[in-house]
Amino acid sequence: MNDDAMGRFPVPDRDELPEDVLGRIDEERERAGFTPNVLSAFAYKPSHFRAFMAYHDALIDDTPLAREEIEMLVVTVSGVNDCLYCVVAHGALLRIYADAPKLADQLATNHRSAELSEQHRTMLDVAVELTESPGEIDDGAIERLQEVGFSTEEIWDIASVVAVFNLSNRMATFADMRPNDEFYTMGRGQGDE
Amino acid sequence: MNDDAMGRFPVPDRDELPEDVLGRIDEERERAGFTPNVLSAFAYKPSHFRAFMAYHDALIDDTPLAREEIEMLVVTVSGVNDCLYCVVAHGALLRIYADAPKLADQLATNHRSAELSEQHRTMLDVAVELTESPGEIDDGAIERLQEVGFSTEEIWDIASVVAVFNLSNRMATFADMRPNDEFYTMGRGQGDE
Amino acid sequence: MNDDAMGRFPVPDRDELPEDVLGRIDEERERAGFTPNVLSAFAYKPSHFRAFMAYHDALIDDTPLAREEIEMLVVTVSGVNDCLYCVVAHGALLRIYADAPKLADQLATNHRSAELSEQHRTMLDVAVELTESPGEIDDGAIERLQEVGFSTEEIWDIASVVAVFNLSNRMATFADMRPNDEFYTMGRGQGDE
Amino acid sequence: MNDDAMGRFPVPDRDELPEDVLGRIDEERERAGFTPNVLSAFAYKPSHFRAFMAYHDALIDDTPLAREEIEMLVVTVSGVNDCLYCVVAHGALLRIYADAPKLADQLATNHRSAELSEQHRTMLDVAVELTESPGEIDDGAIERLQEVGFSTEEIWDIASVVAVFNLSNRMATFADMRPNDEFYTMGRGQGDE
Amino acid sequence: MNDDAMGRFPVPDRDELPEDVLGRIDEERERAGFTPNVLSAFAYKPSHFRAFMAYHDALIDDTPLAREEIEMLVVTVSGVNDCLYCVVAHGALLRIYADAPKLADQLATNHRSAELSEQHRTMLDVAVELTESPGEIDDGAIERLQEVGFSTEEIWDIASVVAVFNLSNRMATFADMRPNDEFYTMGRGQGDE
Amino acid sequence: MNDDAMGRFPVPDRDELPEDVLGRIDEERERAGFTPNVLSAFAYKPSHFRAFMAYHDALIDDTPLAREEIEMLVVTVSGVNDCLYCVVAHGALLRIYADAPKLADQLATNHRSAELSEQHRTMLDVAVELTESPGEIDDGAIERLQEVGFSTEEIWDIASVVAVFNLSNRMATFADMRPNDEFYTMGRGQGDE
Repeated sequence: MNDDAMGRFPVPDRDELPEDVLGRIDEERERAGFTPNVLSAFAYKPSHFRAFMAYHDALIDDTPLAREEIEMLVVTVSGVNDCLYCVVAHGALLRIYADAPKLADQLATNHRSAELSEQHRTMLDVAVELTESPGEIDDGAIERLQEVGFSTEEIWDIASVVAVFNLSNRMATFADMRPNDEFYTMGRGQGDE
Repeated sequence: MNDDAMGRFPVPDRDELPEDVLGRIDEERERAGFTPNVLSAFAYKPSHFRAFMAYHDALIDDTPLAREEIEMLVVTVSGVNDCLYCVVAHGALLRIYADAPKLADQLATNHRSAELSEQHRTMLDVAVELTESPGEIDDGAIERLQEVGFSTEEIWDIASVVAVFNLSNRMATFADMRPNDEFYTMGRGQGDE
Repeated sequence: MNDDAMGRFPVPDRDELPEDVLGRIDEERERAGFTPNVLSAFAYKPSHFRAFMAYHDALIDDTPLAREEIEMLVVTVSGVNDCLYCVVAHGALLRIYADAPKLADQLATNHRSAELSEQHRTMLDVAVELTESPGEIDDGAIERLQEVGFSTEEIWDIASVVAVFNLSNRMATFADMRPNDEFYTMGRGQGDE
Repeated sequence: MNDDAMGRFPVPDRDELPEDVLGRIDEERERAGFTPNVLSAFAYKPSHFRAFMAYHDALIDDTPLAREEIEMLVVTVSGVNDCLYCVVAHGALLRIYADAPKLADQLATNHRSAELSEQHRTMLDVAVELTESPGEIDDGAIERLQEVGFSTEEIWDIASVVAVFNLSNRMATFADMRPNDEFYTMGRGQGDE
Repeated sequence: MNDDAMGRFPVPDRDELPEDVLGRIDEERERAGFTPNVLSAFAYKPSHFRAFMAYHDALIDDTPLAREEIEMLVVTVSGVNDCLYCVVAHGALLRIYADAPKLADQLATNHRSAELSEQHRTMLDVAVELTESPGEIDDGAIERLQEVGFSTEEIWDIASVVAVFNLSNRMATFADMRPNDEFYTMGRGQGDE
Repeated sequence: MNDDAMGRFPVPDRDELPEDVLGRIDEERERAGFTPNVLSAFAYKPSHFRAFMAYHDALIDDTPLAREEIEMLVVTVSGVNDCLYCVVAHGALLRIYADAPKLADQLATNHRSAELSEQHRTMLDVAVELTESPGEIDDGAIERLQEVGFSTEEIWDIASVVAVFNLSNRMATFADMRPNDEFYTMGRGQGDE
């Protein structure tokens, strides 16, 4: 638990936390080698911690989308929303899961400048539209995703990743969550783009 | 379960649903007298249903904010995001919880034209800023909420309501969730504004 | 004459008003059962009252457009411009003239989420473009209206309704005109949508 | 009557016009030395012609605002709305009424770059806000106008000029009304700025 | 050297200037009959003066684009950026080089309302997109320019004119550079549009 | 010279280049250990190469601003303009000159989330305003920079850096200039933030 995990709300002490929250934090720390600050931050309110993690886990574990597609969506949406925590933390995850050390910087800056398949370009175009102008979405968005080969469930899941990170971008910026130092450099090695 | 609950994804049959999802749907139907279409829609994917409802329940049950304040936030945010389902369904809830038959139409159209206390006007100004321009939030937003008397936990919860409905507005519009007919007219009776 | 017809300018007394203005107000009160606040408000300046009503009458009485099409345009434009008076008052008129109790809430929130013919969807798409980005209108807007079957005169009249309500939305919001309570609930009965 | 008065609707022949419309057109032609194309264009629909001219006349004849203030508002609003006809025609009127050959080009481009009194800068700041973001107007706009010395009636009239030209800018651009050649050069002589 | 060449930085005295800067200023004054204020303004910093003039000269002297095409781009871009100096000064140049007394006012207000060939309309559409939304440029912009017949070098040069005036619009507005009086009226004579 | 330096224009061969351009490219390659792709790209047109480099050199060599302040401006502006080349290449320079491995990712994403002195926060606020809304700049921008201690020359230079990178962001995106792989990782070591 890093006291500086966020700038605008107090980070709770470990001994204030319910067991399940503490258990999940410890599990993540063991997996990553450090406690991602988003966990320390959401622990401020355990009922929100649990719900947020449930949605996060559902997005990752119960989907036909590849993990790297999920992280491509997250980094692109977080770039549009100017969210430092999410760009840096999920940029690291994208570099690792896609084994692509340059892709995160490209998507966070401008997905139109990234080297993408037509399918992924369309996926990210819709993600940007749903982020910037949710009221302008109509049948066309769904049709464009169908035309490049996404299944009905994949289309639901693409929208869900975009929607959930429109939640977490807002919480992370509002609370001033700080990316752990580790995230800035993870996965910047010699994989292929 | 209304087959027309949403226009762009199939609504599952009751006998396809896990017991806990079905139980929650039945419980809501008994409370409201009908099944709100958002439940039938999210049932398309039970793991998302559970996470979404967990967040929804945490926002309502674990907060010092009054229920009518929560619904004021929801209707205002949903109006900014042009989300039909959320404006109509939560407009009904706001009319009922605030015993204010005109307030929902006012907030959905323009919170600046509603008759609000200074505290609530500030709360909704910040909600609109966090919805429209999440990247422009800085210390000023938090300070403005403190100045009108919100506690640290209330400020976290205000941001959380805004963030969660930035999620659900996007899912409802993307899936074309349709407000139940009942929501259009509930609570339009003779209470005070 | 309701003293609270608007929040930012004084409403004149009946005995200050010229006979023609008073006559028109009385005529409307008899027709509607109450004096719509927009009349009390514009009476602040009789020369403007007369000109505004002349335009209003021309739009309604001298056009091949159906009255419900006019009100669809008004509600959609007023929703884009966040104008409380016009959304609520013309929402009532739309419910009545179209015998469609849900259509006004749909158009005020997001015309893309309403159930519309292709012709009306195109009409409202152009209305939104002419409202939000008048400088971007070019031949394409007129061609799209022709393609869905509108005549030259109908196209002029569509633009005129949009233009006049870009006037009245601005006056109503600037003066803080308040919708009469009656408008919030009129026409919410059992017609077909 | 210039057949090329507008690009997207037919200009009527003189002998198709009602006498009062023809009379007004002839009167304006005698005053200006040519028929402003806006008159030939609006004659397409006499009921609209009459209402538009009634509002136009009320703005100019029944107000404590100076004529040059009215034209400053018109040129600034028309610049924001990218309306060629209104910028060029009212630019000419502003040069003449204000005896200021450079002021129209300054206001049409950017009122912040014009040399203005504090009172007029505030007037035009509010005009731009009411044009671009009518939904964001609140008490602050009225208070700023009061603070620089405008009376209640002047404030109503400022809003009315802005509102009416939000109407006419949209009609002029939509119909592709063409400024008469004379307007481009009128009043560019040796007055003071 | 006009002391009032700009409003927010001091204009240097002639005897403070390096010989090459002075030489260039004198050369321009002889050509134009007066010293354009942009030269007096940039002389504030000779190293910037030289670089700016080098780019300016390269754009004009080393290109297959016609001079009037360059000035069409400049006036359109400067209109979008609301830059008074560039609209007025390059408006004069456009009137002269295109022998078209009305074209500058048309492009500065709204290039969609100017009478343009399809090729020039496309050129200016791309110029506006690159000015307003540089991040949204993708292959489509280049393809549209190719389709209307521009060569590879012309396409580079179109982008370069747009880019350089996105620089100079910002410097001119920031420094409050004032157009010389002469520019307002030059070229408003009897040429063809 | 990297043939893949940009995606939309041909990169010239070394033996096509004038001696001075080749000399400058070689000099930069020796300094950096590789040829930054922006040089190979601008070599497409030697007259533009020379002018661009002259401005670039003037900004860096003739200013009281610290080099790290210049790079802070560049990265922030390039982030707003979504320019991949400039964010990645100048991100590397910022990490090195400021000895701050995290600052570039912070500024490219959202300067409001970076840890900045009040002086630098104000500098970057003005940079963002001049980038996004050049027409809205007025005396207030200059006054805010003065209040936090910048001299007249520094204020001119801040505006100049912003203006020049509004040029180069547009050229880099339009031409699809590709950041050299080296830039993605340079300076991500163990300095202080």
